[in-house]
Amino acid sequence: AARVPEVVDQCGRKGVRGVVVITAGFKETGGEGTGREEDLVGRIRGYGMRMIGPNCMGVINTDPQIRMNATFAKAMPLSDGPPGKIGFISQSGALGEAILANARDLNLGISMFASTGNKADISGNDLLEFWEDDPSVSIILMYLESFGNPTKFTQIARRITRKKPILAVKAGRSTSGARAASTHTGSLAGLDVAVESLLSQCGVIRAATIQEMFVFAQTLSKQPTPIGPRVGIVTNAGGPGILAADACENLGLTLPAPSPETLAALRKILPPEGTPANPIDLIASAGPDRYEPAVRVALADPQFDALIVIFVSPIMIDAHAVARAIVAAATTQKGTPKPVVTCFMGKIGWEEGIRELEGHGIPVYRFPELAAEGVAASVRYRGILEREEGRPVRFDVDHAAATRILDGAGAAKRAALDMNEARLLLAAYGIPFTPCRHVASPAEAIAFGLEVGYPIVLKGDAPSLNHKTEHKVVRLDLRNGDEAGTAWKELHKHLEGLDPSATILAQKMITGGQEVILGAFRDPQFGAVGMFGLGGIHVEVLKDVTFRVMPITDRDATEMVRSVRGYPLLAGVRGSQPVDIPLLERMLLRVSQLVAENDHVDAIDINPFIVSAAGQPSLAVDARVRLRSA
Amino acid sequence: AARVPEVVDQCGRKGVRGVVVITAGFKETGGEGTGREEDLVGRIRGYGMRMIGPNCMGVINTDPQIRMNATFAKAMPLSDGPPGKIGFISQSGALGEAILANARDLNLGISMFASTGNKADISGNDLLEFWEDDPSVSIILMYLESFGNPTKFTQIARRITRKKPILAVKAGRSTSGARAASTHTGSLAGLDVAVESLLSQCGVIRAATIQEMFVFAQTLSKQPTPIGPRVGIVTNAGGPGILAADACENLGLTLPAPSPETLAALRKILPPEGTPANPIDLIASAGPDRYEPAVRVALADPQFDALIVIFVSPIMIDAHAVARAIVAAATTQKGTPKPVVTCFMGKIGWEEGIRELEGHGIPVYRFPELAAEGVAASVRYRGILEREEGRPVRFDVDHAAATRILDGAGAAKRAALDMNEARLLLAAYGIPFTPCRHVASPAEAIAFGLEVGYPIVLKGDAPSLNHKTEHKVVRLDLRNGDEAGTAWKELHKHLEGLDPSATILAQKMITGGQEVILGAFRDPQFGAVGMFGLGGIHVEVLKDVTFRVMPITDRDATEMVRSVRGYPLLAGVRGSQPVDIPLLERMLLRVSQLVAENDHVDAIDINPFIVSAAGQPSLAVDARVRLRSA
Repeated sequence: AARVPEVVDQCGRKGVRGVVVITAGFKETGGEGTGREEDLVGRIRGYGMRMIGPNCMGVINTDPQIRMNATFAKAMPLSDGPPGKIGFISQSGALGEAILANARDLNLGISMFASTGNKADISGNDLLEFWEDDPSVSIILMYLESFGNPTKFTQIARRITRKKPILAVKAGRSTSGARAASTHTGSLAGLDVAVESLLSQCGVIRAATIQEMFVFAQTLSKQPTPIGPRVGIVTNAGGPGILAADACENLGLTLPAPSPETLAALRKILPPEGTPANPIDLIASAGPDRYEPAVRVALADPQFDALIVIFVSPIMIDAHAVARAIVAAATTQKGTPKPVVTCFMGKIGWEEGIRELEGHGIPVYRFPELAAEGVAASVRYRGILEREEGRPVRFDVDHAAATRILDGAGAAKRAALDMNEARLLLAAYGIPFTPCRHVASPAEAIAFGLEVGYPIVLKGDAPSLNHKTEHKVVRLDLRNGDEAGTAWKELHKHLEGLDPSATILAQKMITGGQEVILGAFRDPQFGAVGMFGLGGIHVEVLKDVTFRVMPITDRDATEMVRSVRGYPLLAGVRGSQPVDIPLLERMLLRVSQLVAENDHVDAIDINPFIVSAAGQPSLAVDARVRLRSA
Repeated sequence: AARVPEVVDQCGRKGVRGVVVITAGFKETGGEGTGREEDLVGRIRGYGMRMIGPNCMGVINTDPQIRMNATFAKAMPLSDGPPGKIGFISQSGALGEAILANARDLNLGISMFASTGNKADISGNDLLEFWEDDPSVSIILMYLESFGNPTKFTQIARRITRKKPILAVKAGRSTSGARAASTHTGSLAGLDVAVESLLSQCGVIRAATIQEMFVFAQTLSKQPTPIGPRVGIVTNAGGPGILAADACENLGLTLPAPSPETLAALRKILPPEGTPANPIDLIASAGPDRYEPAVRVALADPQFDALIVIFVSPIMIDAHAVARAIVAAATTQKGTPKPVVTCFMGKIGWEEGIRELEGHGIPVYRFPELAAEGVAASVRYRGILEREEGRPVRFDVDHAAATRILDGAGAAKRAALDMNEARLLLAAYGIPFTPCRHVASPAEAIAFGLEVGYPIVLKGDAPSLNHKTEHKVVRLDLRNGDEAGTAWKELHKHLEGLDPSATILAQKMITGGQEVILGAFRDPQFGAVGMFGLGGIHVEVLKDVTFRVMPITDRDATEMVRSVRGYPLLAGVRGSQPVDIPLLERMLLRVSQLVAENDHVDAIDINPFIVSAAGQPSLAVDARVRLRSA
């Protein structure tokens, strides 16, 4: 590390435009290393150079014109097949070597590889943009341990995933939510939720493991994206066909029956013991002369969007010849080509067969389930390509009122708004709140009831009374002045024993409708994260909630509402009326805008919001707003 | 197939005791083949011989004294390591070859292999019993496509899994439930639920794929079962350590901090840049002299039940020497040995290192996540070994009353009981039903109300009115004679338009308590399957239900109630009173007994059953009992 500055200077003087600094001993060691890294970046910038690293494993470019291995990995990840089209970003140097070795074993075909190390200059985001329009990269794989700039990543990834797939393994749990655990919103967020929603909002396909990412990449990097989820299976053995079919169904793919024309054609190709269904069972005696026409006919069938071809090599069949037959049928498709993936099981002629297939860009999996996973990833990417572009939405709101409330509380160094302030803040952002007022006497409670109409509710209000039901500080369904007056006196007495600072809030009682919870909190790494769920037991017991990194688009809002398990309760179940779902979506967008425009707001929890059928009143009933400490 | 009888006769006359019939062309072809198979079995039995097959791939025994490969697979599944201890049953011949090839590549060490084919004589159950006390088999792997005799399998597997692990891949979805789809119970059962619950009730560990089964088997067959879920990770690189830690947490394993003694010892072993935490990061410079003491110290730490050792081979380190160091520490543990699994990534010295470890029975995985999966399977087996033995429970019931009701309906060739019959049948089995009676006039309704106490409910009752709410044939909360009389007349008029055969049933109205659903249906393959869930939206929208193959034990009943997501609603949430859970468990056991003792009953649906706090009345409110057609 001590010698790096000198070498960088020499490079700079010679007009070198880019350096890769493998050397460790910089920021990752803390202390002096941090200063060394700052100095290094200063030098690089001074010369107008770009740098990868320091503390990385280096870069590889397998372009035949270049063939540069500037890593300390022993082997180039060159495949037997066509030139690779994978761009790979690894945040871990140690994993890089293993990744390259495995990629070569799988004939994955890496075009460019970069271990980003400390990312002092060039970041993962820079590489994504570099590869965005590079024709030598058709798919991007990432091993991530952290996001340097999540907002920028989101913008870039949203754009690139419309052009080429991005797959990511994200290691290391986010500790988000821990800080925010004092609100529902935060405590429900769990460990990994911000990462999960961020990647999915951007259209990045997340793999659970590196192995799974490779399984996905084999199909995505080599085969066309299918137009739909309908899979045909061609096999010469029942068992593997069943395993593939099971896996397809588990993964949400469908297995339609072949068309009548295909059935007729298959009957001519197959012996009587064969099965012209789906899976199409060619039986063990099938050689190339049966595989080729069967694969051809299946690929031509408009019922199928993708094909899985399974071969279990019996002693008497030449596996290499079968591989050639599959290649012949797959590479001469009429019309828009459909993806073909294969599973070769058994041993005789295995290696030659695999080489034949992979040499022609046809993925070979060792187990039928993996072939199904590859196709499923590709179908998922079709959905990402075709997803509707969400639009940001901006409402006219009363900024002056919001600022007044927040500045007032901020000046008093308060950690939270009281419920009346929360109500006014929400109202400023067009989120209606059930009529409510602090009432300082039985007479005021009765006057409130006359004004808004009975029944009303009385609640004890104080920061110490977060769990109102447990503290028994809620008096529901007060139907007239007598009941309201008596309840006020009882509650007042009860509160004196609990928290003398508590006041009493009167609310109009809302009946009917469906309770939901809307909220947002700030994650230290990802910024504002929004939450939606059904209220009551759905949130408290069933944890049926969903999250999105904010700001959200209209499309995000639509997806949020639809993605909770209890959605049928909102859409109307067994003849019950649907609630006003467009209104709910607008409320989520308004919460998003509120959090985006007011840095002071640290977390917001509208629980419950009661949503009714369109045309009926939908209102927030309770809300907590926590403020950022100055 | 035509020559087989002659050969069998020759064998029989020579006193051969067992035959393996690989030949196809028997029952699997239908028609004549079925007769041929019957004839074959007759001959075998006549000679007192046993047979595997026909239509199978054969058997293998790798015992050094025997070394018989009576399959048409090319290669023996012999490993480089110690003699294999795996017994493998495959129902698919085609998969057999692939399984054997992969087992050998993974050094899995198969002791005996049998492809069971048509199972005309020896079944999978026979093989399980054969291996039960065979010391050369320490773990049993199964690839299943169907269960010949599920009841017998259950008995045998329950017993054997207390002695050695059984892993299974079950291909092919059960079509159970399709027939029963006219009841809640059946329609909720889905496709695969009987298989899933059967295997889990027996303690069989189900793997989703063959690959996953092998991952589990590597640890289970080679290493001791850990006493608990606390995993220590030793690594020489951060990234793979994080991946292993993430995977462990996802799989329900825990990653405790090392004990103070271990921390002190590690500080002496590690350089300052190392991390004496969990994962224990030895950093890239670690050679055998650091690995051996670190692994030794970690294994001696009472905080850890199992160890994952990761090695990413840097250029300068001798991987073979590191492997020897790990072996040395792992094979000389003091006290009860703990399981050690490894992940070797990278290339230099890879093969020698792997051979060293596997030669000493230490599993080597290619990815950190797979190592975690292996350990998790082993921890799961510890739970199976230690699970409480469930007891069957038999209640004194009124058999005479039950028989009378069922015979009456059977004689009338009815497909279902009416609600009053259902009530009496449940009562005969000690399942209390809310007081109810058919009321033929307003006066009878009023008399019923006086007798049982208001409020009451009136319901239209006819087989055509299954969805009572949708048909608007329920009148709730009738508080006095006036309301009851008026409601009877209105309902009577409404029913005339819907179904003139409908009668009116009066019930005492039950308020409070928690709605649950109890039920059972007969699956064509598995027999009676029991169901439990929370009622209302929990069952209709959230599908929050659980199933068990019946008859169930007390332990099963306990698990059923606890396994629904909404269980906290029963156990008491936010200060609400818990319901009478032991009563619920007894109700499930009574349903199980009812179905077991009455073949006539095809499906039973108690929906809702209202369960209250202990001491309060808990009662069935509605029930349907479908009868088997004669």
